[in-house]
Amino acid sequence: MEYIASPKNEHIKAAKKLTNKKYQKQGQAYLLEGWHLVEEALKAGVTPKRLYATDKYLNERLLKPFYDITTEISPEVANHLAETPTPQGIFAVMPRVPGALSKTLSGQFLLLDGIQDPGNVGTLVRTADAAGIGTVVFGNGTADAFNPKVLRAMQGSQFHVNLVTAPLPALVDQLKAAGVPVYGTELNVNALPYTEVAPSAQFGLIVGNEGNGMDAGLLRQTDTNLYIPIKGRAESLNVAIAAAVVLFHLTA
Amino acid sequence: MEYIASPKNEHIKAAKKLTNKKYQKQGQAYLLEGWHLVEEALKAGVTPKRLYATDKYLNERLLKPFYDITTEISPEVANHLAETPTPQGIFAVMPRVPGALSKTLSGQFLLLDGIQDPGNVGTLVRTADAAGIGTVVFGNGTADAFNPKVLRAMQGSQFHVNLVTAPLPALVDQLKAAGVPVYGTELNVNALPYTEVAPSAQFGLIVGNEGNGMDAGLLRQTDTNLYIPIKGRAESLNVAIAAAVVLFHLTA
Repeated sequence: MEYIASPKNEHIKAAKKLTNKKYQKQGQAYLLEGWHLVEEALKAGVTPKRLYATDKYLNERLLKPFYDITTEISPEVANHLAETPTPQGIFAVMPRVPGALSKTLSGQFLLLDGIQDPGNVGTLVRTADAAGIGTVVFGNGTADAFNPKVLRAMQGSQFHVNLVTAPLPALVDQLKAAGVPVYGTELNVNALPYTEVAPSAQFGLIVGNEGNGMDAGLLRQTDTNLYIPIKGRAESLNVAIAAAVVLFHLTA
Repeated sequence: MEYIASPKNEHIKAAKKLTNKKYQKQGQAYLLEGWHLVEEALKAGVTPKRLYATDKYLNERLLKPFYDITTEISPEVANHLAETPTPQGIFAVMPRVPGALSKTLSGQFLLLDGIQDPGNVGTLVRTADAAGIGTVVFGNGTADAFNPKVLRAMQGSQFHVNLVTAPLPALVDQLKAAGVPVYGTELNVNALPYTEVAPSAQFGLIVGNEGNGMDAGLLRQTDTNLYIPIKGRAESLNVAIAAAVVLFHLTA
């Protein structure tokens, strides 16, 4: 097995660049960090392009079938590749494959309209995964799915959920044309308490920007707007929390 | 009005220290940053000990009654006091008053057992506030309520919810003795889907550490353990997301 001791090695420099969207798109790959996330990829049957691991991982049963694509790295290299303060010492170069929408739209969709915080985006995808949502659509202004902070918060849900980047206004029209009701989550005079909509096998739920809410045009396109009645004195909920409450109701 | 231009001013040095738990306890005060959070404090009728503001805030109507305790600061001082990369230029020294439990325990309680991430702790308190929970109890190993990152994620909910620090094992006994059912959130063979417990005006809900879950002894003390059935392939939910789903059900 090849061993790389120096962070200045060309392969390591190239791998480090795969935390950046521009280089990810060029190389059609992204860098995944940490044992738990690499484990999720392998369990989901997604084959890495390359694995970089310190010696403490070399005896892991799960890695054995991948020895021919594994490179041992020094702790110094691990520190260089890592985006976290205390790296675990294992990294995978994963194929960055954009998801796509099927021609006939059906099922349950979560639509992200300008969700900027990577932690929120990752948590939204993880939550959608747990609720059994098939597709999460990344609209304009939403943090990229392969941003290192999004990857951390997703906890491997990119291997379970179809992640698609698409302009939301056209998609909402397509969903409605396909008979899939689209719900907004913006408080307005016509908004319904979310508990008044029955759980259903088909819907699109849109959540909007942390500070500014949903785009006004997109809001007008929705069939119904839902809100979560607030019992205490909080002004609002975190966007991932609000999505979770509504999604677990709609998929109950 | 006094004006402070230099970050080396003794008052500014003292205010900056109020982001740190040790000095917060000594001074019985904490530093709150940003217009929205200061606004929440004033709206809730909590009087700051001191306000520091750049000139752009000096005409705010809400601040007028507090001119005698307001000091104008330079943008340089604002940058020094700030914990955020793009400070808004307003800070309040707030009284740090520990909450207390009433002698007769009744109502709805959220109990935090070793929640380490400040963002999670703040989001949990904000979510509890929105769900109308009266008291959040900070057990051992939980991030401090006045940690700057907790304050940011709480979004002012410390002014709406009773925040108490207390050892959870004794409290759980007291709740049970008072007839308040205590629910855990740890998946085990006896755990019930959360939807099988009816909403109620009285309960304690315990959420556990992000990585290790609830303390085993505490788990044995609970009346019932609840779990959220996972429909997709996510292994688990973020702790604040899980708490939100259960709390909005129990308070429906």
